[in-house]
Amino acid sequence: MELPATTTLRLEPDRDVLHVWLARPEVRNAMNGVLIGELEATFAAIADDRSVRVVVLRGEGGNFCAGGDVKDMVATRSAPAVDGVDPIAAYNRRFGTVIAAIERAPQVTIAVLEGAVLGGGFGLACVVDIAIAKHDASFGLPETGLGIPPAQIAAFVVQRIGLSQAKRLALTGARFDGKRAKELGVVHEVCDDRTLNETIAETLTQVRRCAPAANAATKAIMQQVGAVPLDAVLDDAAARFAAATRGPEAAEGMLAFVQKRQPSWAKDA
Amino acid sequence: MELPATTTLRLEPDRDVLHVWLARPEVRNAMNGVLIGELEATFAAIADDRSVRVVVLRGEGGNFCAGGDVKDMVATRSAPAVDGVDPIAAYNRRFGTVIAAIERAPQVTIAVLEGAVLGGGFGLACVVDIAIAKHDASFGLPETGLGIPPAQIAAFVVQRIGLSQAKRLALTGARFDGKRAKELGVVHEVCDDRTLNETIAETLTQVRRCAPAANAATKAIMQQVGAVPLDAVLDDAAARFAAATRGPEAAEGMLAFVQKRQPSWAKDA
Amino acid sequence: MELPATTTLRLEPDRDVLHVWLARPEVRNAMNGVLIGELEATFAAIADDRSVRVVVLRGEGGNFCAGGDVKDMVATRSAPAVDGVDPIAAYNRRFGTVIAAIERAPQVTIAVLEGAVLGGGFGLACVVDIAIAKHDASFGLPETGLGIPPAQIAAFVVQRIGLSQAKRLALTGARFDGKRAKELGVVHEVCDDRTLNETIAETLTQVRRCAPAANAATKAIMQQVGAVPLDAVLDDAAARFAAATRGPEAAEGMLAFVQKRQPSWAKDA
Repeated sequence: MELPATTTLRLEPDRDVLHVWLARPEVRNAMNGVLIGELEATFAAIADDRSVRVVVLRGEGGNFCAGGDVKDMVATRSAPAVDGVDPIAAYNRRFGTVIAAIERAPQVTIAVLEGAVLGGGFGLACVVDIAIAKHDASFGLPETGLGIPPAQIAAFVVQRIGLSQAKRLALTGARFDGKRAKELGVVHEVCDDRTLNETIAETLTQVRRCAPAANAATKAIMQQVGAVPLDAVLDDAAARFAAATRGPEAAEGMLAFVQKRQPSWAKDA
Repeated sequence: MELPATTTLRLEPDRDVLHVWLARPEVRNAMNGVLIGELEATFAAIADDRSVRVVVLRGEGGNFCAGGDVKDMVATRSAPAVDGVDPIAAYNRRFGTVIAAIERAPQVTIAVLEGAVLGGGFGLACVVDIAIAKHDASFGLPETGLGIPPAQIAAFVVQRIGLSQAKRLALTGARFDGKRAKELGVVHEVCDDRTLNETIAETLTQVRRCAPAANAATKAIMQQVGAVPLDAVLDDAAARFAAATRGPEAAEGMLAFVQKRQPSWAKDA
Repeated sequence: MELPATTTLRLEPDRDVLHVWLARPEVRNAMNGVLIGELEATFAAIADDRSVRVVVLRGEGGNFCAGGDVKDMVATRSAPAVDGVDPIAAYNRRFGTVIAAIERAPQVTIAVLEGAVLGGGFGLACVVDIAIAKHDASFGLPETGLGIPPAQIAAFVVQRIGLSQAKRLALTGARFDGKRAKELGVVHEVCDDRTLNETIAETLTQVRRCAPAANAATKAIMQQVGAVPLDAVLDDAAARFAAATRGPEAAEGMLAFVQKRQPSWAKDA
């Protein structure tokens, strides 16, 4: 694995886990263009690497991410169009490309959500596979209060919690805590300081019981639902099932099942 | 704003809010052809009017809406097809056009749900942005008990609460109260007599903190999800984001943010 | 009604209800090729029969269904492709065809979920109209622990509980009980031994109040949502509404409504 050099992310590989820390704590890890580019490069670097099984996204300094960097946004307001391309639209659209890439990562993605989980940070929370929140984290979509729509993240929020709740959160700018985030389906687990580390550890243990390529195939199948016709999803799923069944993970997994022992991948870590 | 003359609705403009009262209390505000046409005309009249920021839908006499007017339906049973157009199908289809228009209204829509919220009334409840229910309201889809499917509203109920719960409600005709409606995701808030007015007031305050055009753009983006490919949603969102960022609301919103004051639209009411 | 001869299912017609028992209790009703074929034949036999209004799916011996039969799967691993058709993919794909057919059954389908509700059994639970679970049933998607993806059922699980929860369950292999299954939306009712029979009876009573053809039309409409454009759903719904309104069920249903009596179909059982 060759990781990119980064200045706004701190990358900590630890055996089969890559810890990705958002590292602009002085602005509650607000995302600027550099950070978005580094997220993209990091996920691209591991896209074909099955030795990294899990990515843990977290923010330094007690906040996950306060959203887009308003200073960056103010600066772009005066940028003129070049060759018919609006630089504001292009900048915005790129963030959508990056969070879609994170959603499609073959690894299992986990977010640890503390402090501010706002705007674009809320969007990131909505695309990870497993979201673990501190009970006192602060979630919300404050964009419309600034006079702009939550644009690139809108689709991912709708996908996560449904059109009805997504609209309400965006149209009211309501803030809410980790417990409510779990009720809404934004996150899967809520913890306090005392239980956070054990919840992360238990989640990693659960994920490691599942075969890496099988997990990647599962994500690839599930993420097609709604985007392509049902018959096409089922055809693709059958092809992936056959490939998996003839592959080394199924050989080991079914042997381990018959022998009533843990498969090799469960002992990796 | 020029509002249509209406006989089955009572329209009460109040600064930036239009109160729309269903006004056939003698039949629990059951919808006939006149009422459906007046709903359509009312939302059409304000579609391009940003001075109306919120529409509050409510029923007179303690009921929201008991559904389609059965007497009207019985009368149409003997209507013959004209030029190959089945008048029953056309009548029914028109209701779908109207509730789809309400769903796409650029305003924030709020329903206050008391008493009967049945059939077509349930459908209306499923398309507003924010649904506030009295705890003792009575929700349900009684159509199949009459020998007909909940036809035009089916898609909107599925969109609101998912296929699984929508099917169960329709196939059993189950009645349920406001608390259960919130658990199912039909509504967002449950109140009693004592807290209803303050819940409505608080919701209006929250909505007014959000910029009107940004809210309209947000609805337009979110309502595309699932209907068009993800990339097209993200492209449209980027274009709307750029337009908003270059527009007057973002200028005011970002200035207010930097100056740590409320933006102008939050003081409108 | 002419039912197929079956060896892995026990079919018990009882007036308007067909009880379908999965009958391989020695392997916790794991599904092999024979059972899948018999499920297909059974639902095909009643597809045009409105005298069967409800199908109740249940497992013999205290388990619903432990999923695919691993012995069958191991045996297929060495099967070669024939004429370019991979027999593993074809076997797997066929299961998708069968559960899609169960989902589209014109009857109201009920599953009684006890003991193991795993893998393919979990998939079956996700396509019935009404799922009733024992509180101590054991739900989960263990496939990835065996090195294979939950392939054909993935789309139906996503449809039932959303992409977010579906991914988490599959990528962690988490087991959970009936109460949690209700919170997630996998099932609609949770019972204990004492209340199971009365819950089933009450559900049948509710379903019987609803007209059989109207229920079938409702399912047909709702299951299009998301798969075809909204306007097409509304057009189809209007045509079905008109046909129903001109039909015998609406004649009886509206007369019974006016006469304040139960319609004929509510007295069938």
